[in-house]
Formats: sequence, C-alpha cells, structure tokens
Amino acid sequence: MANQQKTSASSGKEGAAEGQTINAPSLLDLTSDNITPNTIRINSQGDNARLIYLMSRLVTHLHDFARETRLSTNEWMAALDFLVRCGQISSDVRHEFILLSDVLGLSLLVDSIDHPKPPSSTEGSLLGPFHTHDAPTLASGEDMSDDPEGEPLLALCTVKDTKGNPVPGVKIDIWETDSSGHYDVQHADRGGVPSGRCVMVSDSEGTFRFRAIRPVSYPIPHDGPVGKLLRLLGRHCWRPAHMHFTFEKDQWDKLVTALYIRGDPYESSDAVFGVKKSLVVDLDKVDGETAKKYGVDVGGEGGMWLLRYDFVLVSEEEAQELRDRNAIEALAKLGLTHLKLVDHLPVPEVD
Amino acid sequence: MANQQKTSASSGKEGAAEGQTINAPSLLDLTSDNITPNTIRINSQGDNARLIYLMSRLVTHLHDFARETRLSTNEWMAALDFLVRCGQISSDVRHEFILLSDVLGLSLLVDSIDHPKPPSSTEGSLLGPFHTHDAPTLASGEDMSDDPEGEPLLALCTVKDTKGNPVPGVKIDIWETDSSGHYDVQHADRGGVPSGRCVMVSDSEGTFRFRAIRPVSYPIPHDGPVGKLLRLLGRHCWRPAHMHFTFEKDQWDKLVTALYIRGDPYESSDAVFGVKKSLVVDLDKVDGETAKKYGVDVGGEGGMWLLRYDFVLVSEEEAQELRDRNAIEALAKLGLTHLKLVDHLPVPEVD
Repeated sequence: MANQQKTSASSGKEGAAEGQTINAPSLLDLTSDNITPNTIRINSQGDNARLIYLMSRLVTHLHDFARETRLSTNEWMAALDFLVRCGQISSDVRHEFILLSDVLGLSLLVDSIDHPKPPSSTEGSLLGPFHTHDAPTLASGEDMSDDPEGEPLLALCTVKDTKGNPVPGVKIDIWETDSSGHYDVQHADRGGVPSGRCVMVSDSEGTFRFRAIRPVSYPIPHDGPVGKLLRLLGRHCWRPAHMHFTFEKDQWDKLVTALYIRGDPYESSDAVFGVKKSLVVDLDKVDGETAKKYGVDVGGEGGMWLLRYDFVLVSEEEAQELRDRNAIEALAKLGLTHLKLVDHLPVPEVD
Repeated sequence: MANQQKTSASSGKEGAAEGQTINAPSLLDLTSDNITPNTIRINSQGDNARLIYLMSRLVTHLHDFARETRLSTNEWMAALDFLVRCGQISSDVRHEFILLSDVLGLSLLVDSIDHPKPPSSTEGSLLGPFHTHDAPTLASGEDMSDDPEGEPLLALCTVKDTKGNPVPGVKIDIWETDSSGHYDVQHADRGGVPSGRCVMVSDSEGTFRFRAIRPVSYPIPHDGPVGKLLRLLGRHCWRPAHMHFTFEKDQWDKLVTALYIRGDPYESSDAVFGVKKSLVVDLDKVDGETAKKYGVDVGGEGGMWLLRYDFVLVSEEEAQELRDRNAIEALAKLGLTHLKLVDHLPVPEVD
C-alpha cells in the first residue's frame, strides 16, 4: 500500500508538493445548487470529447434524480449496496447488470438506437445475459440439444438481404434453455461443456437448418438482487418461450434477435420487454415428406415440431445511414442543436 | 436449479399455465419511442408509492440518457462491465460504489439534501468509504493513533447547539489516515485491530479532546475501476489533509463532517468535492501552558500541533423543518407541482 502511494506521488501527474498549483478547476463550498456544473467542469479536462459528453449527461441526470426525489441518505446507501450485490453475484457465466438493464428496458432501448431496422428487415430483440463464446460449430441439420426431455424441433431458416438475395457465410449463434427452462450455464455441473447452443454458417443459398427442442417459458434468474427488485415492484420474472439468434458477417449490421412461440402465457408480459409481433412464430409439425427430405426421424410419440423463419439482414451501410438519420432527428426533437456526429456518435460542437 | 423454477411456478404469483391471463400491462412491440412509459407502467404495480416514484424517475433519466447520447451497444456493455468490476473489488472494508458516488458529486449532493444546515451550524462533508463500526471508545485525552511516524496533534473541541448551549452525551466517531495516507482498513495486515480511529462522548460541558496525528493528503483508492475512470477523465485522485467526524445523539440530526488543514495543495481541488471554507482550520502549536493543563508531553522535536474547533449541531426538529422547506422550494422550482411529502419524502399525489 505504501508503494502504491509512492508510485502515484512520483508520477508527477497526480502528486503535488505543498504550495504547488494544481492544474484543475477550483472546487470549494459546493452545495446542491452548484455541484452539478462543477462536477461536469472537472470531468471535462481530458481530450475524449465523447467521454466528456457521456459524463456530463450522466452527472446531470444522476444529480437531477437526487434533487427531484430528495433522495435520502438511507435510500442512497440502499441503492449503493444493491449495486455491490449485483456485482458480487456476477461471474463468468452470470451478468447481473445485463439483467438489471434488461428489466429496466435499457437493453431494448440501446439495441433499437444502435441497430435500427428498416421496415423490410428482421427486428431485433435483446441479447440477454446467457450468450457464451464457447458454442460448438455444427454442420447443417445437426442437433444442438442434449435434453431427452425436450420436445424435438426442426428449424429450417434462411438469411437474406432486404432485396431478397440470399446471404451466404453468415455466422449464426443460436441458444435456448433446456426443457426445465435453464441455460446450460445455469447448471452448477455444466463444467466446460456447452449444451443447447451452437454456431452455424449459412450456405450458398443463405439457408441453415438445425435440430433443437421446443423452447419453454422460464423465469429470469431471480435468486439475486434483480429478482428481489422485481418482487418489490410487484412484477413477475417470466420470459415467454423463445430461441436466441445473432447474425454476424463483415459489412452487415450485427443482428441480435429471438423468435417467440405464439400462445405463450407471457407473450405480452415479457419481464425484459423483448417480444415483437414480427418475431412471434407458429410452430407446425414435421410431415413425412419434410422428414424424408431432411433425414430426420419423427417416429417419437409427439412427433417433431417444425420452425420456419426467413431472417432479413441489413447492410452496415444501410444501418449506419439509418442510425445517423435517427440520431439527427432525435437530437433535434430533444432540442439538442449544439451537437454534431463524430464517428456516428453525438458530441458537443466546439464553441 | 430445477427446484428453483418449481418454487416460482408453484407460488401462483409468478407462474401461469398456458392460456391463463397474466395480471400485468401488455408489453409488445416496444421501441425507443414507447419503452419508457411502458417500463414505468409495469414498475407501478406495487403499493409502495415512494418506490414507484423513485423507479419512475430512475427509468426516465436512464432512458433519456441513452436517447440523448445515442448510447452505443459497445458503450453500454463497457458501462455494465465497469459496474461489475466496482462490485467485485468491493469488500467488507472497501465500497467502490460509495467511492464512485463520491467522485461523481452525488455523495455531497445527497448529504446536502438530507442534512441541510442552518447558517449558524457546522456544515457537512461526505462520509467517504472508510468509516467502520469497530473503533474503540476512548476516554477524554487518549491517543487514537499508533503511528510513531505521524506528527502528534492535540484536538480540543466542543459540541454546542445553535444557541450556544453545550450538548453533552454526543457519540462522536473520529477517523483519519496514518502518516503514509492510508486508513487502517487499507493495510492487508490490519487484522481486526482498528487504528487511527476512535469513538468519544462529549462531557457535561460539551467538550471532548483527544490525541491523534496531523492529517496528510492522500490519493483515494485508485487501483480499481473508479481510479481508472478518474485517469480517463484527466482528474487527479487526491484529497486534501483532513480528519473525519460524525456526531450522533437522539433528537439531534446526525452530522457527518470533516476538518481540512489550511494550506494543503489539494484544498481547492478535492477529488470528492468535500471541502467547505468553514471547515478549513489553522493548526497552532501546543504551548507550555496548554500542555501542562492537558497533561501532554510536547518534548518531541517538532512539538505538538493544536487543533481547536467548536462544532454546532442542529436538532432533528430544526433539520426536518429545513429539509421539508428545501424540498417544497426545490420541487416548485423544478415545476413538480403534482408531488406531496409523505414521511418528509416526495411521492406523486394520487389522481
């Protein structure tokens, strides 16, 4: 610890001898009336204009929140302790702050801002906290589920552009829970073996197909601080049955979405606001001809569910243009006329 | 994990069979234009009016922040990862979120809202993350420091009310760093033994005195995410030399404050905005007469520093009245005329 201080003091930037002038705005006698501009002022000494803008808006909203609510010391402390608990329950396979962002509607909002979709394309949905980077790449038609209790499902999908042309070579991440409503990473005995998730690559006709199980509705993790918050708010913690997908290819805007199974009791009350009507699908049963064509066995008691969906990607260029247009419109609507876009993100105009 | 789901599903409140109606607002096709009122709506199902109000303002500010900044997915993810790291570096003796609140000016703001001070009373300053609950109670005149490297200091203080009457029986917590600028809890080998901190009780004349060391300036913990943020912002992480005090007694508003030593190079650039002119003190040297009176030995090379301060407490009633008055004024100024105070905190009027 003594070393740490010495390092800082000797770096020149951080330490200063008595009487030496510090290169920083003067901060004395700060009150609820002047703390905000002064915090913004001292946060604006760096050279990253975007960071300065983000921090100035963050501090403004944070302080306005406290002033409008007359936030009490007890409430403030309870909130800070809540945040510590969110961090401490997080792990390599659990991100409680993504979950918090999800239940507060922020995840959906950020996706809609950063990945705007023209009318002819597939809408986005939120990533959620259960995507991993260790899913196996499967060949067309393989089964990503290891759950014998699940109802088998065949998915026949295509990936096209907004003009209807197939997009080959897209990397597609797919993941869903097992039949008990848990992702593989939620099982303590998962070890390093992924299950219920895979990576596929679309073929020259833009198609991909895989076997899985029929998704089930499930509660989001509610044994932690976010679950406790939902209970305090009188909210349920369920998500309707769905399967997650992401689509990635150079020069195409990354699509993060999910398909929802029609008729789920939580279809219109998703705890994390993910459902869009265009993403709700009807499942059929695989008939004999289709089974034969794709070499699947539908001999089981309940047969096999059939999921068909045609995904439509947006090019990076299209997305960029739409994002910029939306940004300019939104900022004008908010009266923020002193901003300009740099690298497609708003920063204040230099005076 | 399977058990967990079963518990939830069988609780009746959270689970629902297919086709069953969920008692919640309908949430479908949410976009950046309608996510905010819908999130507020679903957060307003409970019966805690204060919590509903806090959440509605939190969600509004959080969403407005994303819309105004056109927050990108990468920035959002970086922020959520930052919050995880803040939680994970926190421990029983380190609260990184208090530190974050401190450097963003929120701590100072909340203290000024919740503990307003009439002109004749001692101003507040922030608690900081290093207060503990295990400090030993010392008798008048005892030494709270174990640091032979520190410059010895004698503190002669009084506690009075705003009319000048002594307040006896006040529990006073006092803490400061050692001469290297570290609190006892920052030393890995602290074990359970507090040092540089004590609890005193004011006597029948409202006085208390103790020995300590002359405070030194020090950097706030900067080996974690908050330190990294300060570097990104071009801010230094130093606090001017100070000693912390809290004052507690039934029917008196808790005073959280600190005294700052005049002439410190960081006096007007405190990293956490704590300095008020009325809390900056001049140190004298203990003269022979004073030494004799209080039975202290000033025979050391540098003699002994003398700190004198008269603290003035506010009654709970006075503080409550001022807090309510400030709240009503602030809400009117913000145009929030639909609010009323319940238990001294604003909640919306029932329509």
